[in-house]
Amino acid sequence: METEHGAVETPMFMPVGTQGSVKAVEHRELLELGVQIILGNAYHLYLRPGMEVIREAGGLHRFVGWERPILTDSGGYQVFSLTDLRRIEDKGVTFRSHLDGSTHVFSPESVVTIQRELGADIMMVLDECTPYPCELDYAARSNALTLRWAERCKEAFEKDGPRYAHGQALFGIVQGSVYREVRERSAEALVKIGFDGYAVGGLAVGEPVETMYEISEVCDAVLPREKPRYLMGVGTPANLLESVERGMDLFDCVLPTRNGRNANVFTRSGGLNLRNAIYKADFAPVDPECSCYTCSNFTRAYLRHLFQAKEILALQLATIHNLAFYLWLMREMRKVILDGRFRAWKLEMLAKLSGGESMVQ
Amino acid sequence: METEHGAVETPMFMPVGTQGSVKAVEHRELLELGVQIILGNAYHLYLRPGMEVIREAGGLHRFVGWERPILTDSGGYQVFSLTDLRRIEDKGVTFRSHLDGSTHVFSPESVVTIQRELGADIMMVLDECTPYPCELDYAARSNALTLRWAERCKEAFEKDGPRYAHGQALFGIVQGSVYREVRERSAEALVKIGFDGYAVGGLAVGEPVETMYEISEVCDAVLPREKPRYLMGVGTPANLLESVERGMDLFDCVLPTRNGRNANVFTRSGGLNLRNAIYKADFAPVDPECSCYTCSNFTRAYLRHLFQAKEILALQLATIHNLAFYLWLMREMRKVILDGRFRAWKLEMLAKLSGGESMVQ
Repeated sequence: METEHGAVETPMFMPVGTQGSVKAVEHRELLELGVQIILGNAYHLYLRPGMEVIREAGGLHRFVGWERPILTDSGGYQVFSLTDLRRIEDKGVTFRSHLDGSTHVFSPESVVTIQRELGADIMMVLDECTPYPCELDYAARSNALTLRWAERCKEAFEKDGPRYAHGQALFGIVQGSVYREVRERSAEALVKIGFDGYAVGGLAVGEPVETMYEISEVCDAVLPREKPRYLMGVGTPANLLESVERGMDLFDCVLPTRNGRNANVFTRSGGLNLRNAIYKADFAPVDPECSCYTCSNFTRAYLRHLFQAKEILALQLATIHNLAFYLWLMREMRKVILDGRFRAWKLEMLAKLSGGESMVQ
Repeated sequence: METEHGAVETPMFMPVGTQGSVKAVEHRELLELGVQIILGNAYHLYLRPGMEVIREAGGLHRFVGWERPILTDSGGYQVFSLTDLRRIEDKGVTFRSHLDGSTHVFSPESVVTIQRELGADIMMVLDECTPYPCELDYAARSNALTLRWAERCKEAFEKDGPRYAHGQALFGIVQGSVYREVRERSAEALVKIGFDGYAVGGLAVGEPVETMYEISEVCDAVLPREKPRYLMGVGTPANLLESVERGMDLFDCVLPTRNGRNANVFTRSGGLNLRNAIYKADFAPVDPECSCYTCSNFTRAYLRHLFQAKEILALQLATIHNLAFYLWLMREMRKVILDGRFRAWKLEMLAKLSGGESMVQ
């Protein structure tokens, strides 16, 4: 996938940089880990530091000092998940800031303007992310709204060009909850409008994992092969393996970063909880097969000590490792896809990954 | 100053790595900043992870993965400042752990054993750090105890060799509160016992800064020129300039790290509080004359945003800069001392540093 801030190899995982920082990791460390694109949250950045500061800085890349691609969401998801006072209407969604209670409106047009001003390489349309469970009737009506918003986003996007010296792409978002027909209708309508890429939203919100895979397959069948497909908010290493098999290209999830900060680390043979007393005098690296800074220099015993002592370095080192693991997984997938041995490798990996301790998912 | 983990140029500042981690900074970043020696706290490490784990790891260097020199304190200072239940007797000090309330005794002999097992390049004797203010009578009696303990530490040190494949040094600690005569007596007695280096303790505990400088001069006059002198727990940039002029060689202080975590940053023209609204759209580096990672890549506006958003990266970047500033200050001092222009440069620096906003001292 080409952007004017560089190419993104797919399948690829995008670390979440909600407020313009991937929590507890320096930008130079992201580059060292092989991160090619990060995600920023328009909702958070719009509220703080606010668009005036970001415009004055010359866009989000310059504000945060990150020179590679950035994808921003529209802010809609945070409006639905973080704010309690809201009104969803055709014109847009009215909400109160979770920071100071002030009232704001996100419309299809305003989220395009915000993302133009952020200067994201990839912008997302405004959508309603349906909760789970969700009645068919609600899913269908909500999706109709999401499609009307998608059309208006596309119009706004075409009317109003980029603010900075680089081009921007706009992705549509397939909604429709767990209903195959609504999902198909959604995907077909979006393709008709025409976007630079397509996201599958409203999954990983509590539905059975088999349902998530089934809906991915439904979307895969409709969405054009030559455009990137982004499965939003997914997921575990197993989710990534299964979803890449189902044609998904891009992923974002707080799992590697948040789990890392909670002492839950991923390894090639399953998860570990570094707070566990069995690691007290375990002088092996977190993952003996990993070559990240953490695994090359530090032991489980030291990391456990840092977590017990509530040292910030614990969060840094565990996050670095978890991101290294996710980036490694994607790199391996790109390799075995090209080698034509994805399926066999995937089964082998799934078996390995099912070892270890239970992880927060 | 030579150690078997490498040389330490003096004057030098030692970042505080209380629990085996300099808060919010990776070891490779310490090296990048020019850190040559870090300080570990025996009290904290003795309680957690405990000596068994550290012995099994092969000492503190190996446990934490730091291959350059480490100085450990005796643990006495933390016993006096962190634990409320304690008994000071000739045999040692009885205290309750601030973690779980368990009872422990630190004796002159046991703190040597602990530091042997930690494998510190520089070990400190057990002393009583007198509070401020402190009556002459108490200071004199306390110092007599500190001297008896120093003698027993030296004996224990000579009887019981290093545990690992590197040599260790033992420093004595001058006490005596603000009383010139007690300080002189203390320094003379320690020199008679004979140590590899001498620390000046019990300062920067609330006394006027002029008193601190006066007592440093008193100690400087008695302590041998050819041995390193370590002024414990000091201090501000101005304190370092004045104390180096008074013959002090080594310093440790939580100021650069703790202030960094509180958004207080040091610059060549005084301190800044990055939470201040005036930095909202200030796209200059923290210190335009600094070449650290933070100043080379990020703006005050971005750091302010990270602090406002409570992002861990804020603590990392501010700490990196503050340590870079302290290490730069020491490097400059070494240079101007060799060039024979210390005094003029010091006056110039003091004038510059007095600008800026007021800092936590």
